[in-house]
Amino acid sequence: LMMPGRTSALNENIDVLVILPLNNSYLFSYQRVFPAIEYARKTLGNGDLFAGLKFNVLYQNSACGMDALFGLVDKQKDERPDLILGPVCEYSAASVVRVASHWNIPVISAGALATGFATKNTEYSHLTRIAPTYLKMAETFQAMFGHFDWRSAYLIYDDDKDERNCYFTMEGVYTVLSEYHIIDHAVLNSHEERVDADEIIKSVYGSEVIIMCAKADTVRDLMLAAHRRKLTSDSHIFFNIELFNSSSYGDGSWKRRDKHDYEAKAAYGFLNTVTLLRSTKSEYEKFSIEMKKSLQQSNIPVCGDCNAVNMFMEGFHDALLLYAFALRDVVSSGLTKKEGSEITQSMWNRTFEGIASQVSIDANGDRNGDFSVIRMTDLEAGTHETILNYFGTNGSFQIMPGFKREWFSLKTIPGPPLPPQPDQSCKLPLLLQD
Amino acid sequence: LMMPGRTSALNENIDVLVILPLNNSYLFSYQRVFPAIEYARKTLGNGDLFAGLKFNVLYQNSACGMDALFGLVDKQKDERPDLILGPVCEYSAASVVRVASHWNIPVISAGALATGFATKNTEYSHLTRIAPTYLKMAETFQAMFGHFDWRSAYLIYDDDKDERNCYFTMEGVYTVLSEYHIIDHAVLNSHEERVDADEIIKSVYGSEVIIMCAKADTVRDLMLAAHRRKLTSDSHIFFNIELFNSSSYGDGSWKRRDKHDYEAKAAYGFLNTVTLLRSTKSEYEKFSIEMKKSLQQSNIPVCGDCNAVNMFMEGFHDALLLYAFALRDVVSSGLTKKEGSEITQSMWNRTFEGIASQVSIDANGDRNGDFSVIRMTDLEAGTHETILNYFGTNGSFQIMPGFKREWFSLKTIPGPPLPPQPDQSCKLPLLLQD
Repeated sequence: LMMPGRTSALNENIDVLVILPLNNSYLFSYQRVFPAIEYARKTLGNGDLFAGLKFNVLYQNSACGMDALFGLVDKQKDERPDLILGPVCEYSAASVVRVASHWNIPVISAGALATGFATKNTEYSHLTRIAPTYLKMAETFQAMFGHFDWRSAYLIYDDDKDERNCYFTMEGVYTVLSEYHIIDHAVLNSHEERVDADEIIKSVYGSEVIIMCAKADTVRDLMLAAHRRKLTSDSHIFFNIELFNSSSYGDGSWKRRDKHDYEAKAAYGFLNTVTLLRSTKSEYEKFSIEMKKSLQQSNIPVCGDCNAVNMFMEGFHDALLLYAFALRDVVSSGLTKKEGSEITQSMWNRTFEGIASQVSIDANGDRNGDFSVIRMTDLEAGTHETILNYFGTNGSFQIMPGFKREWFSLKTIPGPPLPPQPDQSCKLPLLLQD
Repeated sequence: LMMPGRTSALNENIDVLVILPLNNSYLFSYQRVFPAIEYARKTLGNGDLFAGLKFNVLYQNSACGMDALFGLVDKQKDERPDLILGPVCEYSAASVVRVASHWNIPVISAGALATGFATKNTEYSHLTRIAPTYLKMAETFQAMFGHFDWRSAYLIYDDDKDERNCYFTMEGVYTVLSEYHIIDHAVLNSHEERVDADEIIKSVYGSEVIIMCAKADTVRDLMLAAHRRKLTSDSHIFFNIELFNSSSYGDGSWKRRDKHDYEAKAAYGFLNTVTLLRSTKSEYEKFSIEMKKSLQQSNIPVCGDCNAVNMFMEGFHDALLLYAFALRDVVSSGLTKKEGSEITQSMWNRTFEGIASQVSIDANGDRNGDFSVIRMTDLEAGTHETILNYFGTNGSFQIMPGFKREWFSLKTIPGPPLPPQPDQSCKLPLLLQD
């Protein structure tokens, strides 16, 4: 900035601490993400501008818990990294980001998606989120509510009281929608209790839009219960949020090879699923093949024709690029790699080409998100397609050819609520996760 | 233990890090607590057994927030303390205790009263709580519910979403009572919204026992509303929880010198307040006078005839004694002061004479609590006295002469709830404090 146009090569050694779980049951386990980081490192090394930029990658098992923090605070002053990638799990990330911000170390994560992290003026000052957050996802609902003139929502979510993905997902929806709309909710915990889908569905009568975040089996039970009560057409609109696990939505998600399949297929004809917009470009193909190869070498099962790459792999890949761009600008303005705050600021309000698509980081350091709504379009075959896309950067909709206006119109006003029953969902939350 | 009966003098230098807020608006500010720690240090130094035990006390401002954690993690390996006293605030304590436990440093706090800290098998392994926790307080209710055969409770609490004292207080009550009783609740936030006391009281009709934790003014408004609706006698029993601020309960707590004083006095005739049992012994008098002197020297206002000492001052005083006893046992068994885990274990399941009363730490490292219920006994004068004491160590009641059985008897079953209204209290909690 002080020397505009300066493009001299960057010669820096950057210590990167990657904090992710070792356990491969996570989509963002180290073994899944590591090849993507390596890929980015190689790509940068092949260009003239970044050939002198060396990354020394160290790894710390987050265990999706406090080990993430312990690994960081055990480091002596001269061992502290220049950059942290991760953690993804909310409670891990919260403590790591606090200490890293205090130590002036930039953190880039493809996780830490919860709403609380959006407050960057204090303890999360050094956090850049390279994947679309729950709040960004919730904008999709906000836009639809405005466009289609819906007024009330009923949120149903599964809170495991542990990692709490659905809880944090719905927190985003609630934060965005509650300003102008009437929101009610039911919370369930499928880890601890049998889910009485019909009992929950009884409570949605008075709401126009029902939004669910739960396991695939629970969503199926809820849709069956709603369909049996004839709530699926005319007076209610059903949404399911499924951001990461492509296997649990789309074609055949209603299918269990049980006696309810036929009914479930009919019920799923009324279900809309909100998911990440998947876009690809030519470079992406090569990346995808490389990733699949690496995963197979690590003995991580990869299905034949499906996409082996997930949002977290893409995100941590792009994180390294973003850091390199920001570091170059900061160094060329005469500062050093130790200026974590300036490097962080230089990453914000920046748009660049990521591995899968364009990445736009907003002025608050959070990535703008693009999301799709998919729906069953062939009721006979039970197959799905994208009916609507939402683009976070400019807040626009893209209505796809398969979309039918009637799906999102309320023909009748939702009936009166059923006679009241003791509220089972409304318990004191037992938290103190911190 | 290896050498029973060994009582040789202890020669150790102990680095103590006291983590408390600098701000004197807290009852547990450093300036209030420091004289109590000094007092304990002198007492120990005067005895033969501990004359060789030196404490080097360092201080870190917790600011009732993340500064507590930062102060700790900024220490290099050779600067880490042998003992941490504090923090009191829940969110401060959570992060400090995690890191301290990871570093094998014992933590003793007269705070960290929330229920989450009772789980000591993982991240809070090195925490000893020297003041009675919210869960221990809640046992008082559990015992009364059992003894007087009450079935349902309605909890009303003020959640400031910041330090959340009433939230954590009620979490304890909920945890204990919900196992066998029907619990409903209303949450208010007096920081953010005007409290509609009558609207809240409308929702308590179906519950036998109403338990409140809120500011003194809010409690008064709620009692006035309940009294106007004729709920105070016969079918409902009212409790207020007020653990630390003796100024906001007892004689004259109904008085505001406004036009509602007469009505409020009548309403308060039906209010029971749960508070800490205050006990004194001869040594305590000297301690109390010393503390008052020290506070005055620090320009902290002290009222003339009232007690200047609070639970936190007593607790941190007793913490130093407890640590000294445990250290002596551990060292005499051949271990060193660096064995934080053993020292912690040695503090648990131990009973000793504290400055105000006997201190009994249970097998889980939490102090057993004694609590009092006070009530207006002179309806004309509006003055209060203790009607019942609960002793946590053996779960016994002490019924005082002023107690009247009719106060705790339900003459009529609570009427049916009022017609349902939209539930205003039941929102998604917006947390992620960590």
